[in-house]
Amino acid sequence: MTQTQDRSRTFSWSDPGINAAQLGRRSGLDLLRAMIAGELAAPPIMHLVDMARMEAEEGWVAVELVPQEFHYNPLGTVHGGVISTLLDTAAGCAVHTTLPAGVGYTSLDLNVKFLRPVTVDSGTLRCEGTVLQRGRRTALAEARLTDTRGRLIAHATSTCLLFPVDAPTRA
Amino acid sequence: MTQTQDRSRTFSWSDPGINAAQLGRRSGLDLLRAMIAGELAAPPIMHLVDMARMEAEEGWVAVELVPQEFHYNPLGTVHGGVISTLLDTAAGCAVHTTLPAGVGYTSLDLNVKFLRPVTVDSGTLRCEGTVLQRGRRTALAEARLTDTRGRLIAHATSTCLLFPVDAPTRA
Amino acid sequence: MTQTQDRSRTFSWSDPGINAAQLGRRSGLDLLRAMIAGELAAPPIMHLVDMARMEAEEGWVAVELVPQEFHYNPLGTVHGGVISTLLDTAAGCAVHTTLPAGVGYTSLDLNVKFLRPVTVDSGTLRCEGTVLQRGRRTALAEARLTDTRGRLIAHATSTCLLFPVDAPTRA
Amino acid sequence: MTQTQDRSRTFSWSDPGINAAQLGRRSGLDLLRAMIAGELAAPPIMHLVDMARMEAEEGWVAVELVPQEFHYNPLGTVHGGVISTLLDTAAGCAVHTTLPAGVGYTSLDLNVKFLRPVTVDSGTLRCEGTVLQRGRRTALAEARLTDTRGRLIAHATSTCLLFPVDAPTRA
Repeated sequence: MTQTQDRSRTFSWSDPGINAAQLGRRSGLDLLRAMIAGELAAPPIMHLVDMARMEAEEGWVAVELVPQEFHYNPLGTVHGGVISTLLDTAAGCAVHTTLPAGVGYTSLDLNVKFLRPVTVDSGTLRCEGTVLQRGRRTALAEARLTDTRGRLIAHATSTCLLFPVDAPTRA
Repeated sequence: MTQTQDRSRTFSWSDPGINAAQLGRRSGLDLLRAMIAGELAAPPIMHLVDMARMEAEEGWVAVELVPQEFHYNPLGTVHGGVISTLLDTAAGCAVHTTLPAGVGYTSLDLNVKFLRPVTVDSGTLRCEGTVLQRGRRTALAEARLTDTRGRLIAHATSTCLLFPVDAPTRA
Repeated sequence: MTQTQDRSRTFSWSDPGINAAQLGRRSGLDLLRAMIAGELAAPPIMHLVDMARMEAEEGWVAVELVPQEFHYNPLGTVHGGVISTLLDTAAGCAVHTTLPAGVGYTSLDLNVKFLRPVTVDSGTLRCEGTVLQRGRRTALAEARLTDTRGRLIAHATSTCLLFPVDAPTRA
Repeated sequence: MTQTQDRSRTFSWSDPGINAAQLGRRSGLDLLRAMIAGELAAPPIMHLVDMARMEAEEGWVAVELVPQEFHYNPLGTVHGGVISTLLDTAAGCAVHTTLPAGVGYTSLDLNVKFLRPVTVDSGTLRCEGTVLQRGRRTALAEARLTDTRGRLIAHATSTCLLFPVDAPTRA
């Protein structure tokens, strides 16, 4: 992806159907690690918003974002939707890391608290998602967005619904 | 903006500082209507996510989005962050329409409920924001995202903090 | 129930197990209307907090509360937990009115916005719950608390998880 | 307070105006500790719901509740409003511990997640509130409710608005 002086940016992505076809066939942690290793393509949203450097452990993920002018709202700061995208990604993927093959999830909600404005001067943001509770039918995750000085920029909780997924018999 | 067959997209935006300099000098409804009329540039986030067709009245706004593949998460649906961006925009701008010159706002939170998955087959989404309560120090807005069949896709509430803004003495 | 001058109150309630045994055997609207008609006992929480005058239609309920000194927090106003109790009751019962026999529910969350302080001078509060979306596995309800002048005092949304309930074979 | 066999309970409380008059004259931590030490009366809500054993440090509080039948909803478990009352108390009081004399607060919201049902068999519940961020105009706190086995029963976040309070010139 490129960002030129004249305020234009081009980004690319891959067919998201290829990854989606893997869902339910492998554990969530396997899928996320294959994506991190570059064996599976990152989803379009990663390219759209320019998230990068994901890490994943059981019950935990991290992802980063360098704030850029194309993230801005009319107030001259990074739009709350971009911050929400980071938090939703970290919370949802943290839940995904706890799911075995055959279990899918969907986010029921996202409760975001915006604590500090973000600008291009904020430096790289780091967003960590952690599972607070993992039940049979639902899971609760928390996400924290911090700046390079470690200050809390935004916070979110998200409840995910868990359900059985039939693995496709053929790709 | 263009989206080519090979899954690449280029978008452009204008210097967001020009709009931000108007904040506090004109009422929120004036500013939003100037943006809708094309007298002021839309903020970068509108181009990034490809939101369009904003409408604004006192206490109410609407904005639209055509779901596209570049909005997708790894599950093969529009990412919750894109949905949150629409809801945050509608809620925040609805509050902005109630503010006279000299009053600024910032979103304290965004509570999103995801009700139905969205794909490129969902058709144009419409997001309406409405002010539920406007106090002296805070305002509460609600946003509803619906599909072309009028079904509720997502819902949000957002509390904004209001504060005096000094109009810049010079641009 | 009585409230004496010396700041003491006595309240009574009935065995909650009798009502709970009816769950899943009758529709939610039937159960709530039996409770309103006095055929089934109101649950203990109604007596504890002194909620009264419930009404129920398909997808909608209302309940009232007269603010009293025993509801107070250390700040000299009605505690947010009492307000949350009203909102949770209205939202949950609104969902319950949409459930046929054999379907149970549990609240996954409650997102409350406190808009105005309440005191004993506020007069009777009215809380209305409305179902915003009713899916197969979840339902979303909204609750609004208003004072006698019709002003919005507090607002909430709540997501409920729906699941099959086996009717007990014997009471 | 007493709870008799015939399902009746009597509780008492003190004039809440006496405590409220102290607000703004002493720091939040001072006030809470005076309440814990019995020098100031506990607010009515503590007696209504039967919360007990509060502890307070700078940025942190804990409070306990023994679930009882009079807390029950129609489903035969402790009502979500009672759980919300604990969480709201812990979150709000945690913020209060960070406030010097002359600064007041009010809760803007309460976002509760209900994770497990509670009954009289759950044993003593413990609710801890912690300040996540303390700004000049707002503060964010988190509250966690756990059972005797340390399992997370419910979780909440709450944003409080901070503002100057004029100390009364005379009691």
